[in-house]
Amino acid sequence: MMALPEEIAGEAAPDAMAAAEEEAAVAVKSVAEETSGKTGGDRPISTILIVIAMQTEALPLVAKFGLTEDADGSVFPKGVPWVRYHGAYKGLHIDLVWPGKDIILGVDSVGTVSSALLTFASIQALKPDLVINAGTAGGFKAKGACIRDVYLPSHVAFHDRRIPIPVFDLYGIGSRQTFSTPNLLKEVNLKVGRLSTGNSLDMSPQDEASILANDATIKDMEGAAVAYVADLLSVPAICVKAVTDIVDGDKPTAEEFMQNLIAVTAALDQAVTEVVDFINGKSLYEL
Amino acid sequence: MMALPEEIAGEAAPDAMAAAEEEAAVAVKSVAEETSGKTGGDRPISTILIVIAMQTEALPLVAKFGLTEDADGSVFPKGVPWVRYHGAYKGLHIDLVWPGKDIILGVDSVGTVSSALLTFASIQALKPDLVINAGTAGGFKAKGACIRDVYLPSHVAFHDRRIPIPVFDLYGIGSRQTFSTPNLLKEVNLKVGRLSTGNSLDMSPQDEASILANDATIKDMEGAAVAYVADLLSVPAICVKAVTDIVDGDKPTAEEFMQNLIAVTAALDQAVTEVVDFINGKSLYEL
Repeated sequence: MMALPEEIAGEAAPDAMAAAEEEAAVAVKSVAEETSGKTGGDRPISTILIVIAMQTEALPLVAKFGLTEDADGSVFPKGVPWVRYHGAYKGLHIDLVWPGKDIILGVDSVGTVSSALLTFASIQALKPDLVINAGTAGGFKAKGACIRDVYLPSHVAFHDRRIPIPVFDLYGIGSRQTFSTPNLLKEVNLKVGRLSTGNSLDMSPQDEASILANDATIKDMEGAAVAYVADLLSVPAICVKAVTDIVDGDKPTAEEFMQNLIAVTAALDQAVTEVVDFINGKSLYEL
Repeated sequence: MMALPEEIAGEAAPDAMAAAEEEAAVAVKSVAEETSGKTGGDRPISTILIVIAMQTEALPLVAKFGLTEDADGSVFPKGVPWVRYHGAYKGLHIDLVWPGKDIILGVDSVGTVSSALLTFASIQALKPDLVINAGTAGGFKAKGACIRDVYLPSHVAFHDRRIPIPVFDLYGIGSRQTFSTPNLLKEVNLKVGRLSTGNSLDMSPQDEASILANDATIKDMEGAAVAYVADLLSVPAICVKAVTDIVDGDKPTAEEFMQNLIAVTAALDQAVTEVVDFINGKSLYEL
């Protein structure tokens, strides 16, 4: 705080943001160019880590890819509820992790803190070549989203980290590009848009203003946190998000989310399978 | 979600919350009773981990305790900006960690995600007997808080994780007791109150309603996340929080925070030193 550069005033923020985004893009690019974990950008991807927040979202994919649960969960510390499934699928090794049920309350450990911790511990233990955060999201019909649409977000950002001090404001927003996959987008039928992440299922007026500022088409509770951690550890990350509810529609989010969760999970399941099938045999460069 | 118990409806939430708090209290107690890390509850505490969000808050304590920076930072993964200082102080080994400056933006990596990750990685690497989250906070004058007051919160909770689905709502709030230290409170002049944590420096009307519901006297951006991680890994945790700004006062939070940060850091510094001096030579039971 003492070292805050005086020249970076509030009005300079958009420039700083553009510069930060550009720098983030360069950083993402360099991940593919340099050697990341076991696999360089031009060698076939061998290991992918799929991070999923809810059991309902995770189990169909566990079945689809024929994964088995870690008997002793030994890659994670004792006491955490995190669950890892793993196995070989075509030419890939897949690790699929979800944060498990809260130890006391018994509900899925959703949100940014759990997903960030799980992503961190999983990357450290499993050294994936690519992280995929798959899950459900709310969509904005004003930006073209419909129930069951599946998005591959180009950018992620936070909408509930308001820090109205120059530069800290940009840190709070935490906008970053996901790993660029132009060929995947040509091949697989996914929509493109920006994702905004926050820890609430509902949307306050302040959240809404931030989501608008983030130019987001969909909102979730984990994506930007997973991407932040993957970036920290220099692993490329993408998100695959299926729309369960229309945020700017007539129905209450919680009710619509619950009604559509199972059905939309099938669309998510299908999309993630297509993405993984496309990745199989390719290098990061070829995505 | 599919497994959501039907009998737990919205109106049952307060009971469920009381039960959850009770269970959390039992869990906290068991930390002291069972063997946690290297030290059981009745052996002298040997290693403490101090987690601090900002460099300005951290450096005076680094000087006070005569700690030295990790030359190669090797306890953390390559690429993360996290910083560890360590050393012997009286009969204790102290590790003091802060999440460092954001790699692209250069500001302190404040908020729940960074502090949770740092706490997780530090506990894993350093196996502390006790975690202390020290830092600054906003205070509510309606609850008796004044600038420079230092609090030892009895409970922590989140105020920006609204999930209006039964039980998920309680998970979002994430209320938990800090480790109980009745003797420390008798000896050291600290105020008691509840702490509420969120990722924004400002306070939206929704945040305010949640903070009221959490019965909080102070608000910060890390405490509940640090306590969550410590609980996950069964390490007792306390918070020491000095008030930099009055949230329900006349001045804008960001301005008041910046004005008072340095001066209040001295009060924080003094309080943390008194707490550490009290801990020195005692067991968890004796705190």
